[in-house]
Amino acid sequence: MKNKILSDSDDYLLENEPYYIETGDEISIFKAAYEAKLPVMLKGPTGCGKTRFVEHMAWRLKRPLVTVACHEDLFASDMLGRYLLKNDETVWNDGPLTRAVRMGAICYLDEIVEARKDTTVVIHPLSDDRRTLAIDKKGEIIHAHPDFLLVISYNPGYQSVLKDLKQSTRQRFVSLDFNYPEAEKEAEIVSREGNIQMETALRLVSLAGKIRNIREHGLTEGASTRLLIYAARLIGNDIPVHDACRSAICLPLTDDMKLQETLNELIDDIF
Amino acid sequence: MKNKILSDSDDYLLENEPYYIETGDEISIFKAAYEAKLPVMLKGPTGCGKTRFVEHMAWRLKRPLVTVACHEDLFASDMLGRYLLKNDETVWNDGPLTRAVRMGAICYLDEIVEARKDTTVVIHPLSDDRRTLAIDKKGEIIHAHPDFLLVISYNPGYQSVLKDLKQSTRQRFVSLDFNYPEAEKEAEIVSREGNIQMETALRLVSLAGKIRNIREHGLTEGASTRLLIYAARLIGNDIPVHDACRSAICLPLTDDMKLQETLNELIDDIF
Amino acid sequence: MKNKILSDSDDYLLENEPYYIETGDEISIFKAAYEAKLPVMLKGPTGCGKTRFVEHMAWRLKRPLVTVACHEDLFASDMLGRYLLKNDETVWNDGPLTRAVRMGAICYLDEIVEARKDTTVVIHPLSDDRRTLAIDKKGEIIHAHPDFLLVISYNPGYQSVLKDLKQSTRQRFVSLDFNYPEAEKEAEIVSREGNIQMETALRLVSLAGKIRNIREHGLTEGASTRLLIYAARLIGNDIPVHDACRSAICLPLTDDMKLQETLNELIDDIF
Amino acid sequence: MKNKILSDSDDYLLENEPYYIETGDEISIFKAAYEAKLPVMLKGPTGCGKTRFVEHMAWRLKRPLVTVACHEDLFASDMLGRYLLKNDETVWNDGPLTRAVRMGAICYLDEIVEARKDTTVVIHPLSDDRRTLAIDKKGEIIHAHPDFLLVISYNPGYQSVLKDLKQSTRQRFVSLDFNYPEAEKEAEIVSREGNIQMETALRLVSLAGKIRNIREHGLTEGASTRLLIYAARLIGNDIPVHDACRSAICLPLTDDMKLQETLNELIDDIF
Amino acid sequence: MKNKILSDSDDYLLENEPYYIETGDEISIFKAAYEAKLPVMLKGPTGCGKTRFVEHMAWRLKRPLVTVACHEDLFASDMLGRYLLKNDETVWNDGPLTRAVRMGAICYLDEIVEARKDTTVVIHPLSDDRRTLAIDKKGEIIHAHPDFLLVISYNPGYQSVLKDLKQSTRQRFVSLDFNYPEAEKEAEIVSREGNIQMETALRLVSLAGKIRNIREHGLTEGASTRLLIYAARLIGNDIPVHDACRSAICLPLTDDMKLQETLNELIDDIF
Amino acid sequence: MKNKILSDSDDYLLENEPYYIETGDEISIFKAAYEAKLPVMLKGPTGCGKTRFVEHMAWRLKRPLVTVACHEDLFASDMLGRYLLKNDETVWNDGPLTRAVRMGAICYLDEIVEARKDTTVVIHPLSDDRRTLAIDKKGEIIHAHPDFLLVISYNPGYQSVLKDLKQSTRQRFVSLDFNYPEAEKEAEIVSREGNIQMETALRLVSLAGKIRNIREHGLTEGASTRLLIYAARLIGNDIPVHDACRSAICLPLTDDMKLQETLNELIDDIF
Repeated sequence: MKNKILSDSDDYLLENEPYYIETGDEISIFKAAYEAKLPVMLKGPTGCGKTRFVEHMAWRLKRPLVTVACHEDLFASDMLGRYLLKNDETVWNDGPLTRAVRMGAICYLDEIVEARKDTTVVIHPLSDDRRTLAIDKKGEIIHAHPDFLLVISYNPGYQSVLKDLKQSTRQRFVSLDFNYPEAEKEAEIVSREGNIQMETALRLVSLAGKIRNIREHGLTEGASTRLLIYAARLIGNDIPVHDACRSAICLPLTDDMKLQETLNELIDDIF
Repeated sequence: MKNKILSDSDDYLLENEPYYIETGDEISIFKAAYEAKLPVMLKGPTGCGKTRFVEHMAWRLKRPLVTVACHEDLFASDMLGRYLLKNDETVWNDGPLTRAVRMGAICYLDEIVEARKDTTVVIHPLSDDRRTLAIDKKGEIIHAHPDFLLVISYNPGYQSVLKDLKQSTRQRFVSLDFNYPEAEKEAEIVSREGNIQMETALRLVSLAGKIRNIREHGLTEGASTRLLIYAARLIGNDIPVHDACRSAICLPLTDDMKLQETLNELIDDIF
Repeated sequence: MKNKILSDSDDYLLENEPYYIETGDEISIFKAAYEAKLPVMLKGPTGCGKTRFVEHMAWRLKRPLVTVACHEDLFASDMLGRYLLKNDETVWNDGPLTRAVRMGAICYLDEIVEARKDTTVVIHPLSDDRRTLAIDKKGEIIHAHPDFLLVISYNPGYQSVLKDLKQSTRQRFVSLDFNYPEAEKEAEIVSREGNIQMETALRLVSLAGKIRNIREHGLTEGASTRLLIYAARLIGNDIPVHDACRSAICLPLTDDMKLQETLNELIDDIF
Repeated sequence: MKNKILSDSDDYLLENEPYYIETGDEISIFKAAYEAKLPVMLKGPTGCGKTRFVEHMAWRLKRPLVTVACHEDLFASDMLGRYLLKNDETVWNDGPLTRAVRMGAICYLDEIVEARKDTTVVIHPLSDDRRTLAIDKKGEIIHAHPDFLLVISYNPGYQSVLKDLKQSTRQRFVSLDFNYPEAEKEAEIVSREGNIQMETALRLVSLAGKIRNIREHGLTEGASTRLLIYAARLIGNDIPVHDACRSAICLPLTDDMKLQETLNELIDDIF
Repeated sequence: MKNKILSDSDDYLLENEPYYIETGDEISIFKAAYEAKLPVMLKGPTGCGKTRFVEHMAWRLKRPLVTVACHEDLFASDMLGRYLLKNDETVWNDGPLTRAVRMGAICYLDEIVEARKDTTVVIHPLSDDRRTLAIDKKGEIIHAHPDFLLVISYNPGYQSVLKDLKQSTRQRFVSLDFNYPEAEKEAEIVSREGNIQMETALRLVSLAGKIRNIREHGLTEGASTRLLIYAARLIGNDIPVHDACRSAICLPLTDDMKLQETLNELIDDIF
Repeated sequence: MKNKILSDSDDYLLENEPYYIETGDEISIFKAAYEAKLPVMLKGPTGCGKTRFVEHMAWRLKRPLVTVACHEDLFASDMLGRYLLKNDETVWNDGPLTRAVRMGAICYLDEIVEARKDTTVVIHPLSDDRRTLAIDKKGEIIHAHPDFLLVISYNPGYQSVLKDLKQSTRQRFVSLDFNYPEAEKEAEIVSREGNIQMETALRLVSLAGKIRNIREHGLTEGASTRLLIYAARLIGNDIPVHDACRSAICLPLTDDMKLQETLNELIDDIF
């Protein structure tokens, strides 16, 4: 796969279908929102498949996908673009959001609450019926390409007074609720992505189920599907099951000694 | 519609009448303020039509409209303009407020309390009888075009000690109070903008009315008219009514599980 | 009126007498301070005429007037000046304070407590018998023009621990106390500036008097003279008296529902 | 008086003897510290003559005087110097401290506690027996001119946890304690500088004495000698004594209504 | 060894085998994670060998090693790269992470929790199955070299509310738990690296064991293996054992007088 | 002594032996650490001779000495170096630490806890067995000159939660404890450096001893040896003993009136 400077929308198109198993009616609602030109918000915990779902939908709708991971040092200008000095002249360079708006891509703002406030405000006129993006530094107002779709993700578990999404932002998005898939489906995913037999996958999912149930005892979040896949892959590389579960599931989840003992006992119960 | 670098006031003129239904005497007061050259403040909750009203008035008064979404990283220089390097020389570039003041536009500062304090101070001499804008970096004082009008919006629900509008700012604006339209009018809007039959629109409005009544039970703000329109559009794209209401109304409003159950019951009651 | 880059003191001279009615001995004390080369501090609430008074005095003394609205993002360099890049060389550009010091203007720093601390310190050597301004970046010390006068304004109602004026700053200024004018005089002002009959003006002033009396019940500041003039102008543009008072006086003052009811009752009592 | 870019030490020499009345042995100790090449710290309240004393000593010792008013946005580079762009090359520009160190001036850092911490650290190697100034950006270490003397001032009344002078800084300075002069001497100063008769000066000093005694009742600092001189000058410009005392003494000291009443009564008692 | 500007991967290859004694199954798990292209997190206290382990694994796997010490002023652009001005043009310069991603190196982010939040977010798409690095400023998306491996380290003892690793980051890494080696192995290390006889090494390890046991009595962390090696080396340079232990072990561990007495007594007990 | 731009190591060599009286075994331990290439930390109160000790050791070991006074605005780039613009090209300029690492100097970081956190992290790879300095901005890794030695100083009296040295930093340094010298030795130092007779020096030391004993009654730190030398020098310049002690010892130590009285009584007791 070549690394090239991305200049047109083809570079953002996904070539192969990203593997995704539907767990509710999220595909049809996403399609309806896309048809109705309504922006979409994905809510749910870490590693339950939000990013994969967006990739899958971009492939299905044959739209280029531009992803921006939000963080507290991301300024509006990082998304909109900025002037660079070239041959003694300042030349404008589109940022990822601007590129997406022009080419009619799906623009996915991952973990939007982490972004600076200026970022959230910049997307307001894009996420109501105006569908415009104002680039004040250039004095340019861009009307979004008809196929442009704005998607944001958000983990309600992190919700705090300081990092809450304002109602004036929330009330601009059709929302989809994500959670861990049900046991059968999750095992299918772990088996396929982790490349192990269904039986071991089912046991890993059963372990995850137990861990997710003790969540209130000090675990801020349950074991994600991703971690189950990690464990599966370590097993596939000849690491004993107990060691694999410890390295791929217990240690990433917590630093607390007592909790780790509990988790180790759960592993003993199942394997 | 072409995206061009906006250079004269025509680019900021609205071509088609923005749909707006009057709910009180806001149109005549706005016109009187415009005639008397008094700046205007719009107060009201998210998504109840403040932005649409300003667009409508700009169209009615045939004035160009310059909108600035305020946020806490918006510096005065973002509104006034700045020097850019061009061919080894620094060249001045007007910001959106300066452009509006020169061309006699309506300048709409959306969510003014979010702006940095320097921004609020910059508009003081513009919003009393001096009607001047001082660009200290250029040593220039601009006398506003006779048709220039300053409009700000403000959501009293967000009012906090840190983000309150100072009396010395507030007492410079004629104010208009906005709220959700009365049921009949709101249904008319939802039906027209959401492209569904009046009967469904009325039910959606009735649902919104119930949600707005439980506002004190943990909802920081009621369902906006905009969300009703979203639900309507999803329904129009073949999403079942319950799913549409859940995705377009319940999930955007809250992450609280109990509150969502209450909201789901309200949907069951009405549909 | 032309907008030009201000280069000499004439541009800062006021052409017409700004309308001002004296309420005490403020004019004679200001003149004495100007003769004795003592800096002046104006204290008082929002919209009671401090800015207008300075304009009036600048006109009376035939001195150019340079106004700087202070705010928390105003750096010393915004007032002193800075180097700009021009044809590959850095060229010095005087800021508004430096310009005022050189040309012997009245320099009016509005809402000084809002300024950054470096700003307050910069004016110290200007406000004692040294009357010098040090521009460290140029290595230049400017001796103020003999006619230079420094004036600052300050609203004691905003006084807080964080934003208090230090004694080492306060004790450098002859001070003048401002307040709302007495009823007769205020009505005269409202009638003239708001262009309505004296009788209505008197009623508006009487309304303001009642509002100022309930100030302790949650209103942080009383209705300013400016708001009375706004109401008068709306009435002059055919807005019914009650609506005009509501839009120009009640809504700007407070977002509190109960307080607004009280204010509406006061309007009913008077009109 | 000409304003010129200061390039050699002559520009910093004081031409005329600054008026100063000794109140203790401060002159001889300052001279001894100068001879012994020990840095000096002046402690005392606002407006009691610290700055004037340094000017007087600079004149007596025939040394140039470089004054830097410290504040919380003063960076070390503002004192040391910085690179500027000139004809496509960066050229070094000495800051005021560097200039003073090279030319053997008295460098007076006014209100040192207000400065950023990097500033205090920069002067450490200058204020022990190394007497060196390191300019890291140039890779240059300057050995101070033999006549160089560092003087800092400091108001203990402002002392707070955040703005305290560290022991590692304090223990580098010979210290002098300043306070208001005794009545006879203060009246002599007020009479001379305020240009009024000795009798009125004595009354003003007696008023100040009473105000300084009520300091604990809410006044954070007593009336400075400077304010007495202001009052004297207003009186000399035909302002009635009561009005002059109110504008030049009461109003600058406090915004508290009750305290102002008390102060007004003190004026009534004396005049 | 020459200091050269590192331009290709050879410069990052370790020439000699870094000395490392395995204490569990960390080597096989690390290899399995490398084969399965899963990122790795090393958890453990100061100076217990995490950095040495990564160097050892890089040598074993024959991969170049790029180390970045994280801190709170490390911005994403420090890791990704930035534009530099060269001959009047801005030229892109890869940062260490970008270089590692392109050349297929092991990139070791030491003390990741110290880094700014933008840094943690930047590595998200690199640490799931996308294995991409987005350089927004260039508009480039880099697909990681197949041999690229991301390794982070983390000291759970420092864990605080402000500096915790988010679950959305943690749940992307296979984790390895590090601790001090068991006595025999640690003595072997101290003897070899500190160049002293096994007998003295065993006594030093026994001293460390006792210190680690009193950890709860005010010591935030036990004596590291590194400090034992320091003591050994001082002894090898003719410093008496007690003095060497005091300078290399007691004084670095604590400033508390009582604790130091306790530590001194422990030394007396053993030597 | 000439001030020149320091370009090679000779400029950092000390020409004359800095006067230093050993108080324990600090010289031999420092030498052993230097031989074993172990970094050194000096702990102790203000003005007790840490800086002088390093100068003395640099002279003894015939190594150049590079001193950096740390403070909270010292960025890593201030120590490492930065790019400067020269003839339209950016040219790299080594910072003081980089220079010391290349030339094999002793690099003395004074008051390391005051430095920003990025600074502490930058020295980690320099202070373990890697002995490397990574200059990420250049993509250069420097292997320290074999004679390079890192020395840091640290005042435990200032230790606070915010400004504590992290264990991961502390456990990289052989440590030496400093304190005021014993009476005889201190008097010898005061007599020599202050140029007074041994008898007066002994009395000054006896005064310091008493002051250091009342340290717990509000004095945050005792009188340093440096202050005694200051008093001696003032006495040598004909200032009466009491006045000299007051200016050079009491006033620098505290602003508290009561404490100053106590200190004055101590002076009366001794002289």
